[in-house]
Amino acid sequence: MSDQTIEPRVLKGFRDILPWHEAERQRIMQLLAETFARFGFVPIDTPILEYTEILLGKGGGETDKQVFRFDDNGGRDVAMRYDLTVPFARFMAAHLHELYLPFKRFHMAKAFRGENTQRGRYREFIQCDFDTVGTDSASADFEIVLMIDRAFAAMGVNGVHVHLSHRGLFNALLRAIGAGSNGEEVLRIVDKLRKIGRDRVSSELDALIGAEARDRVLAFVDAGATGAGRDVNARIVDELERLVPDAGAEIGRLRAVVECAGALGIADRIVVDPSITRGLDYYTGIVFETFLDDLPQIGSVCSGGRYDNLASLYTKERLPGVGASIGLDRLMAGLEELGLASSSTRAADTIVLCTDEALLSRYHAIADALRTHGVAVDVYPEARKIGGQYALAEKKGIPTAILTDADEPESGRVTVRVLSERANHDGLSIDEAAALIARVVQEPSR
Amino acid sequence: MSDQTIEPRVLKGFRDILPWHEAERQRIMQLLAETFARFGFVPIDTPILEYTEILLGKGGGETDKQVFRFDDNGGRDVAMRYDLTVPFARFMAAHLHELYLPFKRFHMAKAFRGENTQRGRYREFIQCDFDTVGTDSASADFEIVLMIDRAFAAMGVNGVHVHLSHRGLFNALLRAIGAGSNGEEVLRIVDKLRKIGRDRVSSELDALIGAEARDRVLAFVDAGATGAGRDVNARIVDELERLVPDAGAEIGRLRAVVECAGALGIADRIVVDPSITRGLDYYTGIVFETFLDDLPQIGSVCSGGRYDNLASLYTKERLPGVGASIGLDRLMAGLEELGLASSSTRAADTIVLCTDEALLSRYHAIADALRTHGVAVDVYPEARKIGGQYALAEKKGIPTAILTDADEPESGRVTVRVLSERANHDGLSIDEAAALIARVVQEPSR
Repeated sequence: MSDQTIEPRVLKGFRDILPWHEAERQRIMQLLAETFARFGFVPIDTPILEYTEILLGKGGGETDKQVFRFDDNGGRDVAMRYDLTVPFARFMAAHLHELYLPFKRFHMAKAFRGENTQRGRYREFIQCDFDTVGTDSASADFEIVLMIDRAFAAMGVNGVHVHLSHRGLFNALLRAIGAGSNGEEVLRIVDKLRKIGRDRVSSELDALIGAEARDRVLAFVDAGATGAGRDVNARIVDELERLVPDAGAEIGRLRAVVECAGALGIADRIVVDPSITRGLDYYTGIVFETFLDDLPQIGSVCSGGRYDNLASLYTKERLPGVGASIGLDRLMAGLEELGLASSSTRAADTIVLCTDEALLSRYHAIADALRTHGVAVDVYPEARKIGGQYALAEKKGIPTAILTDADEPESGRVTVRVLSERANHDGLSIDEAAALIARVVQEPSR
Repeated sequence: MSDQTIEPRVLKGFRDILPWHEAERQRIMQLLAETFARFGFVPIDTPILEYTEILLGKGGGETDKQVFRFDDNGGRDVAMRYDLTVPFARFMAAHLHELYLPFKRFHMAKAFRGENTQRGRYREFIQCDFDTVGTDSASADFEIVLMIDRAFAAMGVNGVHVHLSHRGLFNALLRAIGAGSNGEEVLRIVDKLRKIGRDRVSSELDALIGAEARDRVLAFVDAGATGAGRDVNARIVDELERLVPDAGAEIGRLRAVVECAGALGIADRIVVDPSITRGLDYYTGIVFETFLDDLPQIGSVCSGGRYDNLASLYTKERLPGVGASIGLDRLMAGLEELGLASSSTRAADTIVLCTDEALLSRYHAIADALRTHGVAVDVYPEARKIGGQYALAEKKGIPTAILTDADEPESGRVTVRVLSERANHDGLSIDEAAALIARVVQEPSR
């Protein structure tokens, strides 16, 4: 057997999550789960590994090269899921008879793509998807938008704007200006508005569909995103109605959602923005993207829309729905940049120091008693030099320490040291110690 | 394009998790995470996909055939993790310089094995591992045992017993009886005690090492597991000390842990049981398994022990540690059998019924107001027949419904219907409605 060790490396595009990051990720996921549950959305899970036929369907396309695909030991052609949408479609088709409609679910889980890591993307990432399927209603559309708003509020993020449009409006406009055959290309150009600017969009459209049609597309795009708020949104919808003929149903839907936003007091955070198109063929109704005022450069942190039929690959039952997806990794990077990620690296609220291994059971009894008061308690496991024990507490972000020794009365009185102040508070009961620790932990400076 | 749909099947050994099961799984994982955090354990995560060399090390062995292994699109030999221990060892080696010692972590995540599904095993399963590394101390040993006890208490499970031994005691006994060379085989036989019974263990040992050595092994095994409690445990440790020569350090460690258990008041749930061996070469110190009195047939629901060196494959730094692992799927099956899984399939606490789509914004405003009182609120999205709306509420386990119509005053008064009683409570403010719903939800009959 060799003396050599194996280099403890991870695959390109994959990463370990260290505790301070993972604790924050779990906190955010918990906040999201609580918000979703409050709206009556329920959690599900699906396998990470599926039949390739299920995940890639008709096959082909850009996705294939990025999929982790292989033959398993039983000779099955299998692949790791690359999103949560396709597995959800398969899930709905498989379990329709056990479920109810409309069905509202959320799913926070890992997905895998062999993406180009140079763009700062990870090959293993956490998606957070939420959808209502089995209804065409505007109520479900609005509920998703409201839930996005409430979810970001729960995370403490301000300056969040949901940009909203209707995919069918664009289609109606394209028909009206006779650009239907160039539709995909027009959409692709408009979709680049944020990236390449209005001037280049204008000249590219000119080259593709001519000046007159271009002007109507630009007028349509320019009509929106002039601001937020109840009155502004109503005016934009009116203007879009004027600009796009034969789109009564689409305008009606957009108006319904915008009016609900007004009535619920969230219109200031809703922007009617016809430049939002969300790709080419999946979405058919309301579409939206979510931007953070303070981080426009990271793009949309939550995108989605309404689709006509979720699971046509797997069932003949039509399942219209509306949903959205949060890329948790990008969102967390954003929260960190905004200083909204909990910067606490606190592994515990206090640590029971160890000066005499004969007192082992006493240390654990104190720790256990404090835990019943809701205090997170570490116990230093060995009788090392006290300086080293303080150093560990500091590295772990633990703000207080418990000292006790054989001289202290068996009554269970302890000394709490507030490490930042180098101050000892002695003769405390467990109750008093827990209260002091709670005060120290809650101080905003920590 | 074919008219045929793809059968929405999952791979053998994999499964979808339906909402009522997933909600319960997340509740249990949350309880465990809270318990671990209260002991100062921090969460980490590692990639699901790793270099095969990392996961299988020297290669060979039974594990290989069960591993999902393939060449990725970049030609790398990769595999899906089959446990959380090997990735943790790699993690510690990779991040030693960023971390501190002792390091206490927990990790709840999926692992994958191509196991024989006929034994009721899943090929994708959730492990819950927790370890303290970087210390040899008895304090860390006891802390793990205490945390297991507290974790099961948090889940509401009674009749939990941690069976405890010391791997080194068995080794000392084998040396004393001159059975060192047959050690592995002796361990393997004793490990089958629960399965094949004492008589067969006795005859197999007789055949292997002769009657005299057999008697000493059986005396050793028989000395334990005669009961629990402070005094019983102390007597068993004394008896083991008498039976096994030259094992002072091992007896001392066992005694320290047992004495702490007595001092902390958990000795009634600790059984000193020398038949616990935990496999052949990984563990070197304290070993334990956890049994549920009411479900002896499912075997240990939480097992672990102390090891000498976690990460010798990846680093020359010695990392002694102690840890345990819960197989969450087996545990959850057990909780369900015991009726301890929350049987609630409640998707929300109430549902705002829809009788007039013109009142859409009002329905959502009522829902939103109730949510600020902590009520989980669904909104029926379309003006369907009221009977169908009640039917959906029933299928979703929602115990109450909110009725409002254009005639009700704009003051925001609503009617709460308690569905099981077919009773309407009208003219309620949002506060009153929230309070009523909370009372209904908390009724034990639900």
